Amino acid sequence: MRQSQLFLSTMRESPADAEVISHQLMLRAGLIRQLAAGVYTYLPLGRRVLQKVEHIIREEMERAGAQELLMPAMQPAELWQESGRYSVYGPELIRLHDRHEREFALGPTHEEVITSLVRDEINSYRRLPVTLYQIQTKFRDERRPRFGLLRSREFLMKDAYSFDTDWEGLDQSYWNMYRAYNRIFARCGLNFRAVEADSGAIGGEGGTHEFMALADIGEDAIAVCSQCDYAANLEKAQAAVPAFIEADQRADAGTAEKFHTPNLRTIDQLVQALHIDPAAIIKTLIFIADNKAVAVAVRGDRDINEIKVKNYLGVENLAIADPAAAARLTGAAPGSIGPLGLTVPVLIDEEVARMTDGVAGANEQDYHYRHVYPARDLELKHVGDFRNIVEGDSCSRCEKGRLNIYRGIEIGHVFKLGTKYSARLGATFLNPDGQVQTMLMGCYGIGVSRILSAVIEQNHDEHGILWPAAVAPYCVHLIPISVKSGFQMQTAMELYSELLAQGFEVLIDDRDERPGVKFKDSDLMGLPVRIIIGRDAEQGMVELVERKMNKKELIDKDAVLKRVREFVESEV
Amino acid sequence: MRQSQLFLSTMRESPADAEVISHQLMLRAGLIRQLAAGVYTYLPLGRRVLQKVEHIIREEMERAGAQELLMPAMQPAELWQESGRYSVYGPELIRLHDRHEREFALGPTHEEVITSLVRDEINSYRRLPVTLYQIQTKFRDERRPRFGLLRSREFLMKDAYSFDTDWEGLDQSYWNMYRAYNRIFARCGLNFRAVEADSGAIGGEGGTHEFMALADIGEDAIAVCSQCDYAANLEKAQAAVPAFIEADQRADAGTAEKFHTPNLRTIDQLVQALHIDPAAIIKTLIFIADNKAVAVAVRGDRDINEIKVKNYLGVENLAIADPAAAARLTGAAPGSIGPLGLTVPVLIDEEVARMTDGVAGANEQDYHYRHVYPARDLELKHVGDFRNIVEGDSCSRCEKGRLNIYRGIEIGHVFKLGTKYSARLGATFLNPDGQVQTMLMGCYGIGVSRILSAVIEQNHDEHGILWPAAVAPYCVHLIPISVKSGFQMQTAMELYSELLAQGFEVLIDDRDERPGVKFKDSDLMGLPVRIIIGRDAEQGMVELVERKMNKKELIDKDAVLKRVREFVESEV
Repeated sequence: MRQSQLFLSTMRESPADAEVISHQLMLRAGLIRQLAAGVYTYLPLGRRVLQKVEHIIREEMERAGAQELLMPAMQPAELWQESGRYSVYGPELIRLHDRHEREFALGPTHEEVITSLVRDEINSYRRLPVTLYQIQTKFRDERRPRFGLLRSREFLMKDAYSFDTDWEGLDQSYWNMYRAYNRIFARCGLNFRAVEADSGAIGGEGGTHEFMALADIGEDAIAVCSQCDYAANLEKAQAAVPAFIEADQRADAGTAEKFHTPNLRTIDQLVQALHIDPAAIIKTLIFIADNKAVAVAVRGDRDINEIKVKNYLGVENLAIADPAAAARLTGAAPGSIGPLGLTVPVLIDEEVARMTDGVAGANEQDYHYRHVYPARDLELKHVGDFRNIVEGDSCSRCEKGRLNIYRGIEIGHVFKLGTKYSARLGATFLNPDGQVQTMLMGCYGIGVSRILSAVIEQNHDEHGILWPAAVAPYCVHLIPISVKSGFQMQTAMELYSELLAQGFEVLIDDRDERPGVKFKDSDLMGLPVRIIIGRDAEQGMVELVERKMNKKELIDKDAVLKRVREFVESEV
Repeated sequence: MRQSQLFLSTMRESPADAEVISHQLMLRAGLIRQLAAGVYTYLPLGRRVLQKVEHIIREEMERAGAQELLMPAMQPAELWQESGRYSVYGPELIRLHDRHEREFALGPTHEEVITSLVRDEINSYRRLPVTLYQIQTKFRDERRPRFGLLRSREFLMKDAYSFDTDWEGLDQSYWNMYRAYNRIFARCGLNFRAVEADSGAIGGEGGTHEFMALADIGEDAIAVCSQCDYAANLEKAQAAVPAFIEADQRADAGTAEKFHTPNLRTIDQLVQALHIDPAAIIKTLIFIADNKAVAVAVRGDRDINEIKVKNYLGVENLAIADPAAAARLTGAAPGSIGPLGLTVPVLIDEEVARMTDGVAGANEQDYHYRHVYPARDLELKHVGDFRNIVEGDSCSRCEKGRLNIYRGIEIGHVFKLGTKYSARLGATFLNPDGQVQTMLMGCYGIGVSRILSAVIEQNHDEHGILWPAAVAPYCVHLIPISVKSGFQMQTAMELYSELLAQGFEVLIDDRDERPGVKFKDSDLMGLPVRIIIGRDAEQGMVELVERKMNKKELIDKDAVLKRVREFVESEV
């Protein structure tokens, strides 16, 4: 492609409303333009990158035996009513009426459509399992679209759905997709982790993993072990628990005693007034879980993880009790509440269960207990992991490594749905004995457009993008320094033809611009290999620059083809 | 692909609601499924055909120098207000509100978006011309969706837009796309004509062509010359006009005289009562054209072409006058109106201008004139082509051939928009002299999904589809007659591997079904080459069937690769 003809405008300055570097660089390098909040046009360079990513996804989906189809964006409201999601999905679901006043949703996801399709097409175990996928435009009316393609309202997604006869089959389909996702993101040049995640509101039994590209601007926090391959979403991450100290091992422990603590309501106040470690305090909060009250006790230096509490209780809704309700249930206002003598069930975090000399609220205004020894003083009926892990916790899997907390951009998600949709929509089949069974489903998503942002967040320097070869819009940037020099242009055009003939994607900067302008644009666009044709061309020499490593060398122009091929082979 | 694993269900019977053959076959062969009226899912076989067509389009667009981008479906209402189309587009435009009550349209086309984009990106003649295209999903809330993919509400379209500095440039861009379209449709195996069309409501100066796939179920009528390459939409088609007979060449013509014609109001009544040819009657109708009255006179056996009348007058709106208004303007009710003595302008069709002895209304209840000789009796101020052509008319271009009328499916459309959108949206540039000029635009559409319907309408027999090799979902259908025969299956799997290794797309029917079922499905699906592995396989022979020609022959299995290659090369 001749750059003089390319539909591309670069910008020197970052637009004021672009907060994150990937958004800034995508605008500056002419990859995308905003049409409305969270709604973007992909310019030719951006479209090319998108196509590279789509191509990698298709190859790996086909390799994994998934079959491509294409479902519509316009989905009848009736289908969403059948699954029960029409009323609960909220304002993210874009709804519209057709000219006959029939209601439709613009698909944010396609569980309903695919389930109704497979229900109608397949009725025998003989035609299962099957995994179907599409690369298709999704619509979600985000409350706050931002960060360019990271949180947009119209975006490209790869969504796949598997259908199996039993849990064992679902397990195979799930790990098959899991492996395909690892290959896809690796081929895109991403630094990512597959992290264990909570199944969340979408429901369903069984496992789920999120694929997270590590990046400081990521909206999710993930815990990653320094030694083993354990990685989990913060909602789900578990730390290793120290060994249990049996009650009789601490025969020296003092007896729990109530003492006056006027105006000491917060952990900080207790720490300062009593000169104790926050880890020695038992923090107790009252929650309403599906209309029933429960207490949760964690160490004073920990945060309660509500997802873990919900999962332990098996409830749909969990909310902290308002102060009046808490006082009614415990006899004290928050700040003086503690686990001793409560009538509501008490969930005790493992770390609390292992304390031997704690301070806890006495459920009486301005009083606390000291020398609380839970194994002795409490009924340890509900002990579990109810806290958020923190940086430096021991890994629960290998028990050797430390957990580090990173930020991640969610680029993919695999999920065992089980029978959630198939049961509601009646996707059944006849088993070999002629009995009706419900299909087991999995769903698997990749944020195709979001991958562009993630790649750039991980691959840039102060001058611009550093495209991995596999997803670069072009592989080679040919830059004749002076288009007025007949010799330089001739050399450049010869190299251009040779590279094209060998199947390389080449952009040639044939614009009559100053070298400084060309180099700045080239740095910004970040094609992997740059070949500069300047004065040395008359001696048959050109400069080859590997953009990422900023490795420059003067080479014989006859060696260009070989060197470019070597580079690409080493990269991809 | 193993057919046992393919997500495909064929149907023996045509669904009741599928009126046309392409719709029936697409459902029966498992290419598409309906989700809602005019909203379809493409199953794997259909998706593959779509991708073949997309690939051909991309290759030819790139060859023509067009650059691909991708614009959003969600378009802010403000843009449509800027172009003036938001209020006039009607209920076909799907409108919606986001959560902040901002109005959006779901793009039925992208003139507004592309014009605003190019306005913002390009401001100098140096960066023109440019042609941009996308393959993207469009939404049109058709009043009556039908015929499967032929008239649907969500569909895939390739739309391109060119931007030039002057009309000469636009002309080049236009014909460049015109040639690309010819290549695209030819490669898809379609029998089509590029027909001259009227610019219609979309407006704009200059030319437009519609690309029509000939098919009896087509919604448009086109006139095609039997001798030359003239082809035009019926709205636009012109017949050759017989030589003019000067007034003095018919000195024998009788004088126009009024005569009593009680209760003779229609052409039929006049023909029967007076025993004359309808071609000897002058039919005169009164129209209201942008609030002004005009009369239009054509031969009694002709229909008035309102598009031609509108274009002649240069008006936006044309409607036939109601009887009361017509009587007020002429002094007579419809049935007694004629061109003599009218005070409103009279548009006279060329055929009428050449008559020498006509019968026409006298603008007096129950009276007509006979011996009307327009060249003598009328002021021939507005003579032109105001009628629809009919089958058998002489061609206006070569004057030798006859015009035949065919039905056509519109598969593409090229259109010179001129400055219609660029002027309204302010897409200007600086010319070499530093002056501001308005860009000249063209727009170019292809109904990508509609091509599937057109191909099938033209390529089928009573048993199923006859895919042209270039767009077939798979090229070769391998059919081992009995999967229980180890020898047949081994031969089939060997051929499968060999064909795949050579890059052919192969579907192998490895299902344990009766041969009759397999052949019926194979006929329905219509892959170009079928290879049947039956008992003769033990003698090293297989049957090769060219589906389209129903050409069968027993060949040595070692000759299969060579024969398939020969076939494909002869087809594509």
